[in-house]
Amino acid sequence: MTVYKLTVQYDGTRYHGFQKQPHLLTIQGVIEQALAKMTKGQAVEVIGSGRTDAGVHALGQVISFNYPGNLPAISMLRALNSLMPLDILFTDSQIMPVDFNARFAVVSKIYEYRVALGRYTNPFLRNYTGHFPYPLDLEKIRQALRDLEGTHNFTSFEASGGVIKNKVRTIYQAELVTENYPQELRFTFHGNGFLYNMVRILVATLLEIGSDRRPVHDLQRLFEVEDRQQARVTAPASGLFLQKVFYE
Amino acid sequence: MTVYKLTVQYDGTRYHGFQKQPHLLTIQGVIEQALAKMTKGQAVEVIGSGRTDAGVHALGQVISFNYPGNLPAISMLRALNSLMPLDILFTDSQIMPVDFNARFAVVSKIYEYRVALGRYTNPFLRNYTGHFPYPLDLEKIRQALRDLEGTHNFTSFEASGGVIKNKVRTIYQAELVTENYPQELRFTFHGNGFLYNMVRILVATLLEIGSDRRPVHDLQRLFEVEDRQQARVTAPASGLFLQKVFYE
Repeated sequence: MTVYKLTVQYDGTRYHGFQKQPHLLTIQGVIEQALAKMTKGQAVEVIGSGRTDAGVHALGQVISFNYPGNLPAISMLRALNSLMPLDILFTDSQIMPVDFNARFAVVSKIYEYRVALGRYTNPFLRNYTGHFPYPLDLEKIRQALRDLEGTHNFTSFEASGGVIKNKVRTIYQAELVTENYPQELRFTFHGNGFLYNMVRILVATLLEIGSDRRPVHDLQRLFEVEDRQQARVTAPASGLFLQKVFYE
Repeated sequence: MTVYKLTVQYDGTRYHGFQKQPHLLTIQGVIEQALAKMTKGQAVEVIGSGRTDAGVHALGQVISFNYPGNLPAISMLRALNSLMPLDILFTDSQIMPVDFNARFAVVSKIYEYRVALGRYTNPFLRNYTGHFPYPLDLEKIRQALRDLEGTHNFTSFEASGGVIKNKVRTIYQAELVTENYPQELRFTFHGNGFLYNMVRILVATLLEIGSDRRPVHDLQRLFEVEDRQQARVTAPASGLFLQKVFYE
């Protein structure tokens, strides 16, 4: 048995998320089917660094698995790529110590969220952005991002369906990228963990702050009230990208 | 009756081309359905500057139609956009003299073709590029593009199915854009007319020249032999964009 760690990009548009589900097209399901072809039917369980939802994309998702054989790392990458549809691409491959697990060894992650601005969505970006048509005060968003950096209780920013008891997470860096402004904004969030839908709820709340629907320091209040009903909105899955996963 | 001229962008991935076909999703069909809603059922025939094939995109396709009413141009644009799916977007609207016809008044067009290079296709560009994994000599491609500029008989570069007798066209400008090289190449072709699949056959032939599968001046020979069997390859629809249509 050999343990592989692979980095994978995917366009999540067609998929019902990362995690395997019966009768639905998922990233994990497609990768496990390819591995089963390579092992002539022996099941190989794929472990992801975490789930991504339906329609969410990855630029650097990381997976690991135990493979019954010992291909060189580059051969594993090429074999899997030859079996993938065009919307999934492995970009890196390493052989790891036998106790490596792509989920438990995660130290931190970076998510990126892309927002298309203006009255209409660019037809070519509809699956790769959220859309926000109202005027924004970028300085207010930047102030709110400074409130976000640090360690907070994110109960107000978790969708129902989350199963983890501890809601405290640390955001090391929260940035606004304005390279393509005013056509597009990008948010990046580097943190030690993210609750269910947390990035999408944060982005929707930040856009409300930037468009004067909430006070500029409302994040501070939301951390304290620990009530999801207060942060009511969730930005669409299409704008969210898992950008990078860091390990020890 | 008022004659409108509208500019429209579309992601052609989901469509069976521009031209209306029974029981198939087409750009013309979707626009005519929207217009029929606006007229409460009265049919309005949409005229495009030309067809685009299944999977081909447009950044600046132009259409015209006779509308039984006299909305301001901007209201027509907004009404149509409110009825379009997210992969079709009108970007400009004008009221024209009653004899304007978006097909017959065309003076010239610019097509762009995007080629993704490297071993693998970027999963996010699979529907918006052709893919070419072999090394290229850009200087040879540039030499071939100089052969292409001018007036030639393009019989060798027309797919079967073309119906126009005169195969002589003028290419005013043929350029290689290397802004994102070595990840991507873009070709632009500005000409007074294009035969069926002509751009896609030209691009595939240019890539053969750039990868030493054909002599650098083979276009000159192909113009002379007037034989489609000599230019055997066609680049995929996904890389092709109708960029701009010029009128008198």
